Amino acid sequence: MQNKFNIGDLVRPEIKQMTAYHVPEATGMIKLDAMENPFSWSDEMKGQWLEVMCAAEPNRYPDPSAKALVQELRQCFSVDDELGVVLGNGSDELIQLIIMAMKNDACVMAPMPSFVMYQHIAKSMGVGFVGVPLNSDFSLDVSAMLASIKERDPAVIFLAYPNNPTANLFDDADVLAILEASNGLVVIDEAYQPFADKSYLGQVKHFDRILVMRTVSKLGLAGLRLGFLVGPNAIVEQLEKIRLPYNINSLTQLTASFAFKHMDVLNQQAAIICEQREELLAALAQLECVEVFPSKANFILFALLDDSAERVFEALKDEGLLIKKMGSVLGLPKNCLRVTVGTADENRLFCKHLKVILS
Amino acid sequence: MQNKFNIGDLVRPEIKQMTAYHVPEATGMIKLDAMENPFSWSDEMKGQWLEVMCAAEPNRYPDPSAKALVQELRQCFSVDDELGVVLGNGSDELIQLIIMAMKNDACVMAPMPSFVMYQHIAKSMGVGFVGVPLNSDFSLDVSAMLASIKERDPAVIFLAYPNNPTANLFDDADVLAILEASNGLVVIDEAYQPFADKSYLGQVKHFDRILVMRTVSKLGLAGLRLGFLVGPNAIVEQLEKIRLPYNINSLTQLTASFAFKHMDVLNQQAAIICEQREELLAALAQLECVEVFPSKANFILFALLDDSAERVFEALKDEGLLIKKMGSVLGLPKNCLRVTVGTADENRLFCKHLKVILS
Repeated sequence: MQNKFNIGDLVRPEIKQMTAYHVPEATGMIKLDAMENPFSWSDEMKGQWLEVMCAAEPNRYPDPSAKALVQELRQCFSVDDELGVVLGNGSDELIQLIIMAMKNDACVMAPMPSFVMYQHIAKSMGVGFVGVPLNSDFSLDVSAMLASIKERDPAVIFLAYPNNPTANLFDDADVLAILEASNGLVVIDEAYQPFADKSYLGQVKHFDRILVMRTVSKLGLAGLRLGFLVGPNAIVEQLEKIRLPYNINSLTQLTASFAFKHMDVLNQQAAIICEQREELLAALAQLECVEVFPSKANFILFALLDDSAERVFEALKDEGLLIKKMGSVLGLPKNCLRVTVGTADENRLFCKHLKVILS
Repeated sequence: MQNKFNIGDLVRPEIKQMTAYHVPEATGMIKLDAMENPFSWSDEMKGQWLEVMCAAEPNRYPDPSAKALVQELRQCFSVDDELGVVLGNGSDELIQLIIMAMKNDACVMAPMPSFVMYQHIAKSMGVGFVGVPLNSDFSLDVSAMLASIKERDPAVIFLAYPNNPTANLFDDADVLAILEASNGLVVIDEAYQPFADKSYLGQVKHFDRILVMRTVSKLGLAGLRLGFLVGPNAIVEQLEKIRLPYNINSLTQLTASFAFKHMDVLNQQAAIICEQREELLAALAQLECVEVFPSKANFILFALLDDSAERVFEALKDEGLLIKKMGSVLGLPKNCLRVTVGTADENRLFCKHLKVILS
């Protein structure tokens, strides 16, 4: 006869209160919800890729240090030789890795709103999270952040650059002020960098506590789950100790290495997305009942001035268009929606339906 | 001017003292070190697989719940409808997930020696680990474990079944005694189940606290990184909340679904490996200066009675054969080596060289 067992007695109280991360069903929909690159590969490129995949050995463990991939990546993104690189199963795993490495009493800070996984992952590990609201123009509230840094001394600060869901870049002077005040790590999350003209990657070597995080997800390789961190070796060495040794599987290693040899294709797609973004921004700006916010990313945040985001979201869904309703995200205006920049056709269709729905 | 920064002030003391998990360089070697299935796929099967891969959409996020794959898997491994399934990026990630879900003051228990990642991952997260030595015949020391459970009340107990590196199955009565004494989760890690004739998978539904963990790594799909947990829904629901939503990438989902449709091929390979294991066990038993231990896995543990494991390991390496020296693993006899069962040719070559080296 066993003792009474209740899983609720074992798991962290934060987890008990959580609900699982919800990803909406999207079969058959035009997906403008997840910041994916809408372009597929040409038949020629797909054929070359399949030839590469032929060499895969599914029965063998992947190279735990992914040497070939890291070499391609260093070249592709001009990573300084003196800096270290950590690969993750998506940025998500890297966020988890960084937080995991910190002492038990550590806390994590980020502006609010920002990428939801900073808080979600901290919570999953029972690590304190401090969210500091952005200014109403979505710039960093530097004085609030400095005060919060002084009070809480966070071990890690995450700055998404461009920020998600607000789509803007933060001011250099603000980032620098935070960097100088922090006693901990500052992670610049450049997931949306392919659509911005700025990056901190070239700055990493001038600081002892910056990590730049990138992902290939928005670049057209969301299916692969590959993120990477670039930072000083002293930091990278510690993170490498607790990275799960085979976290990047063979197929991802082969496919990403292949894709990095075709960066011209991916960069060209990003350039088209940027052009499309400008057109979409202009089209949304023409709608009277919409406030559209500037974007340096592959998505656009907009607020409905006198309509319900829920209603418009559902009406678009009825037309087969899936975007993201921001719901109860703290620090955003009411009735915000976020749309990913798609192909020219997808964007036109989105605008057409939105106009009808709002009229 | 920035404050003094030292990453050592931020990371857990346990991590500072750690060294990274070392995987030896194996290029050009016959790999009998990592419990891989030595068989590759036929050209026909590879061709069919590439056709499946053609449908991949690298630019889209993977299905976060991997519905198609989970359905194949449930059928393939006869998982009861009433039980839940959690997928992991290898068993490693599942071990991490289970430990991560537990309260801060939790501790983790496993017999020693066992799979090194139980302790390594607990340490990475600053969670206490209690290793209870096995008996000298590698059976569970039940009275020591029961005493330890009483004293430490572990939130999770890991039992590798068959155990690694000792290759044996534990006695049912011993497992049951531990299960009945435990107030926490009991994870039966069946990584090597394809080579044993026993499993706890059919028992899960009769208990409220058992999780059975499997991996496809030893089955011939080590490159994919796919592990899975089967357990009561009440437990699975909590773990699902903190599973990273896109942890199984698209290529792994497609490839594993494909492979599960060809389980007959993988099972046949496992059957050949079992036959080969028996031959290898018999050949090693003939060597006078070797003590060979029983195996229900795809590897064999043996001890050198009057030679150095280091010397023999290096001499085999000079011949192009990579096996595993057990070095300073607590609870094993001195001078132990572990060899993975390879193809008939590989095993013969290994035996031939070992005989010469020992003579």
